[in-house]
Amino acid sequence: MSSTSFTVIGGDLRSAKLANFIAMDGNKVNIFGFKDRDFEINLEEYDDLNCAIADSNAIIGPVPCVNDNQTLNAPFSKDAINFEDIFKLMNKNQIFIAGKITEKIQMCAKKYDVKFVDLLEREEMAVLNAIPTAEGAISIAMQHMPITLHHCNSLVLGFGRIGKILSKMLHGIGSNVFVEARKYHDIAWINSYGYNSVFINELPNYFEKMDVIFNTIPEMILGEKQLSKIRKDTLIVDLASKPGGVDLKKAKELDIKTIWALSLPGKVAPETSAKFIKDTIYNIMGEMEVER
Amino acid sequence: MSSTSFTVIGGDLRSAKLANFIAMDGNKVNIFGFKDRDFEINLEEYDDLNCAIADSNAIIGPVPCVNDNQTLNAPFSKDAINFEDIFKLMNKNQIFIAGKITEKIQMCAKKYDVKFVDLLEREEMAVLNAIPTAEGAISIAMQHMPITLHHCNSLVLGFGRIGKILSKMLHGIGSNVFVEARKYHDIAWINSYGYNSVFINELPNYFEKMDVIFNTIPEMILGEKQLSKIRKDTLIVDLASKPGGVDLKKAKELDIKTIWALSLPGKVAPETSAKFIKDTIYNIMGEMEVER
Amino acid sequence: MSSTSFTVIGGDLRSAKLANFIAMDGNKVNIFGFKDRDFEINLEEYDDLNCAIADSNAIIGPVPCVNDNQTLNAPFSKDAINFEDIFKLMNKNQIFIAGKITEKIQMCAKKYDVKFVDLLEREEMAVLNAIPTAEGAISIAMQHMPITLHHCNSLVLGFGRIGKILSKMLHGIGSNVFVEARKYHDIAWINSYGYNSVFINELPNYFEKMDVIFNTIPEMILGEKQLSKIRKDTLIVDLASKPGGVDLKKAKELDIKTIWALSLPGKVAPETSAKFIKDTIYNIMGEMEVER
Amino acid sequence: MSSTSFTVIGGDLRSAKLANFIAMDGNKVNIFGFKDRDFEINLEEYDDLNCAIADSNAIIGPVPCVNDNQTLNAPFSKDAINFEDIFKLMNKNQIFIAGKITEKIQMCAKKYDVKFVDLLEREEMAVLNAIPTAEGAISIAMQHMPITLHHCNSLVLGFGRIGKILSKMLHGIGSNVFVEARKYHDIAWINSYGYNSVFINELPNYFEKMDVIFNTIPEMILGEKQLSKIRKDTLIVDLASKPGGVDLKKAKELDIKTIWALSLPGKVAPETSAKFIKDTIYNIMGEMEVER
Repeated sequence: MSSTSFTVIGGDLRSAKLANFIAMDGNKVNIFGFKDRDFEINLEEYDDLNCAIADSNAIIGPVPCVNDNQTLNAPFSKDAINFEDIFKLMNKNQIFIAGKITEKIQMCAKKYDVKFVDLLEREEMAVLNAIPTAEGAISIAMQHMPITLHHCNSLVLGFGRIGKILSKMLHGIGSNVFVEARKYHDIAWINSYGYNSVFINELPNYFEKMDVIFNTIPEMILGEKQLSKIRKDTLIVDLASKPGGVDLKKAKELDIKTIWALSLPGKVAPETSAKFIKDTIYNIMGEMEVER
Repeated sequence: MSSTSFTVIGGDLRSAKLANFIAMDGNKVNIFGFKDRDFEINLEEYDDLNCAIADSNAIIGPVPCVNDNQTLNAPFSKDAINFEDIFKLMNKNQIFIAGKITEKIQMCAKKYDVKFVDLLEREEMAVLNAIPTAEGAISIAMQHMPITLHHCNSLVLGFGRIGKILSKMLHGIGSNVFVEARKYHDIAWINSYGYNSVFINELPNYFEKMDVIFNTIPEMILGEKQLSKIRKDTLIVDLASKPGGVDLKKAKELDIKTIWALSLPGKVAPETSAKFIKDTIYNIMGEMEVER
Repeated sequence: MSSTSFTVIGGDLRSAKLANFIAMDGNKVNIFGFKDRDFEINLEEYDDLNCAIADSNAIIGPVPCVNDNQTLNAPFSKDAINFEDIFKLMNKNQIFIAGKITEKIQMCAKKYDVKFVDLLEREEMAVLNAIPTAEGAISIAMQHMPITLHHCNSLVLGFGRIGKILSKMLHGIGSNVFVEARKYHDIAWINSYGYNSVFINELPNYFEKMDVIFNTIPEMILGEKQLSKIRKDTLIVDLASKPGGVDLKKAKELDIKTIWALSLPGKVAPETSAKFIKDTIYNIMGEMEVER
Repeated sequence: MSSTSFTVIGGDLRSAKLANFIAMDGNKVNIFGFKDRDFEINLEEYDDLNCAIADSNAIIGPVPCVNDNQTLNAPFSKDAINFEDIFKLMNKNQIFIAGKITEKIQMCAKKYDVKFVDLLEREEMAVLNAIPTAEGAISIAMQHMPITLHHCNSLVLGFGRIGKILSKMLHGIGSNVFVEARKYHDIAWINSYGYNSVFINELPNYFEKMDVIFNTIPEMILGEKQLSKIRKDTLIVDLASKPGGVDLKKAKELDIKTIWALSLPGKVAPETSAKFIKDTIYNIMGEMEVER
């Protein structure tokens, strides 16, 4: 990636770091929407949106893109930034890249014939984000358990992206890792990686001896019935996005400590997250060049 | 799995071991087609195919099922066993399970309304078979290299089932593992597992410093052009099924030692292979019960 | 270990847990010096020291044993417990086991002909304590770094007990681990385990690229000269006992974040610590039986 | 290491490779005692021992140094090389480095006031040699077992250098590793590394379920009594130097396959071995410089 121009518009600390990282790779980077920040960025900053965008190959929006489905997620700008204003100014050779591009934004982009890519729809981004998520989950467990993860029984529910990386890290620390899955070939993978596999049907038999349970499945998997089989001194860390996988009310009644941890990458490792966004943006642009 | 009846018909040593393993789990097992073996099996053996099959829930054929597309692969039986004879005798409650059930066999099974499942089409079987394949590849490399795998540069072409497990084992021995892939999300996975990722475009730059190259991709990936960049003292182990991934003639001309290793699971670890077949058969039968 | 009697005298939460764990193994356990606690223990509790001790095989003191070199470290007892009073009451068949038995206590024990063993002098105890120490160090790093440990450059100073286990865990999480040592054979070990070895002379060349530095060496290893080569955004975690291995004043001047973490096992994982104490006590008593 | 001169005298293929490796680092290397070889070396070769030695800083002898305690181990030289002839020609600034320098050679060296260092007495050399030894042991096991090392029960007797590295590699391949030790702190280390520890007293209870047993202890540990508890289909790999750790006659009677594997580094990985010798020679010379 050389001599490409980028404009980073809005976003939180990660976007600021992202802008810096892209510039450090030798690219031209403009920023817009960081006027009210309390830290320094040594990049070209414009008051005028048109100037900020005009010469750029890629316009990088926030992750997630909007808060209220109208204005950009731009905590360091008091002035609201409307995404339609951006699209109006973009030409056919430019691309808009951001996270969670809602249907409304998509429709607007189409209206102005703007090419766009959603970072959160990129498989490599999802894989990479599983790394800080897994570390965040481990950090939480370490802080809330009176025993070491080493040699304790830890159960991971689900063997998707987060489940795979979390299991590997727990195993790497020396935990006695159990992983639940519902497909025979996932069971085969779990065994091949040296973890203890738990077929979903057998799950209730395993709860009793678990010291910590990490849920990665985005559905109600630990309801009243399941919770009743879990020990009071077992820690539950729920990593599932809303509505979550644990009946929190019931867990509280049963006095089982449960931590629902959301959006860990940005909280746990904003710089690493920014780097992953950068890598994914480069991949996207590399693909476009190939297509041309 | 309890009180189910099986008939194991034909097959090599793995089938004999399979029959024993199933019986050791407390199941009734008949065998047929092992009359000319030179080892002992303490299981009910029938001269009459009908008697052998009549009371069984599952009829287990060989892996692979046939040699000549007509008679069963039954090295321990001088008498030919015709698969049509088996299907004629089977009823609707029975299932035929074997490996590599060719189109011709499938058509015959349909003619007699026989339910069948191909073991080699099962994803968990393919995953499990990657384990002995990877060990076999490592064993070959250890025998043919004048250096240790530990700390040497090893390159794995492809990050499918075999690529994943082989990389893990090489890393576990202490090798400096490089893995080639062509999808960005596979690159992300490779990095997340702690191996060095090599995007397919950059491959030529890496050949020079590799001490051993394992190919798992079933297409001609190491042709003349690629081979010309590989050192003469680099070992190539090709694990790709026919037609293979290495231009063997060219490799010989260039004096690059290449070993094309096929069907490793049965050769390297017949007992483990038999166990994996058993597990997969149980999975198949478990699914059928659920379906009923 | 069966039908042995223990008296646990004084100590913090770990001692309370220890008493419970020993009892759960089927042993008789008396406690003394927990009268002012705010939690429950279902064990025989005595007001009279003589009754508490009389029938026990082993008297378990706190870790560390004393605060002021006179009275026992007994935070859950308002009444002071004098160790001389304990030794007066003990007979030749009993053993006193505690942590950090100072010279003064040793002399007193000899005066009354009391057998004693210092838990902190036991090599297995020191090895086991390295586990929660390493986890604690990792937890601290995770909380204070804006990047993931995964794929970052982490440097461990020293390859003793803590260095060995910390390196292994960091490697297991996917960190790019560098380990400093000053003996050639330690360098050989470090390489054999798959970490990057740094001979002490070369250390200054490595500081620049490190994201986190863990010190395990109990001497001033990071003084002004070394600190001046370390980046401002590098985190230093000092695990060395007093006087520590980092010039904290200088680090502050240079704006390098440094965390001096002491006595991690009891803080990070009191239950695991109690279990390790229990295992070591059993080892000690097993050895005594052999000696008889 | 720059601009140092070496003379490599005698030795097998490893010595030839060693000479090449040292030269590739930019040093001057003479060779002597390779006249009858059937391969090429592009290094200065002398007919006269004095010329070969005169300008060198270090004279590198074979590993092991002598065969018959009189003449050098020099398979590529028909002419016998007497070590006394070498020592006569050496001066006080030169050093003689070789493997297994017997008492007789030592006395002779002292007679001529020759400084010498035994490579096999170097701790780092012993550690490094454990790497090819462990790989060789794994290669042997893979070739002789009908099951995969992955998921099988493997027992390592002894937790010294070879035991430590072999356990790590077996674990890395996915084996279910058990390690025997007789010291409590070794048990602690074994557990901390995530293997199953077996205290020596409990060993008999574990034999029955082991699929492969690796012995690293140089004493008769598997005698008649122990062997009688081992399954007939268990493989034993004895890595202990003479007289070995297994009663081979009894093992044969009991029909337990036993492989006694000696001197693996030179056989399994001659190049890696040569590199380790080189590293150790550099360490030795680095230490001498410091001492000066």
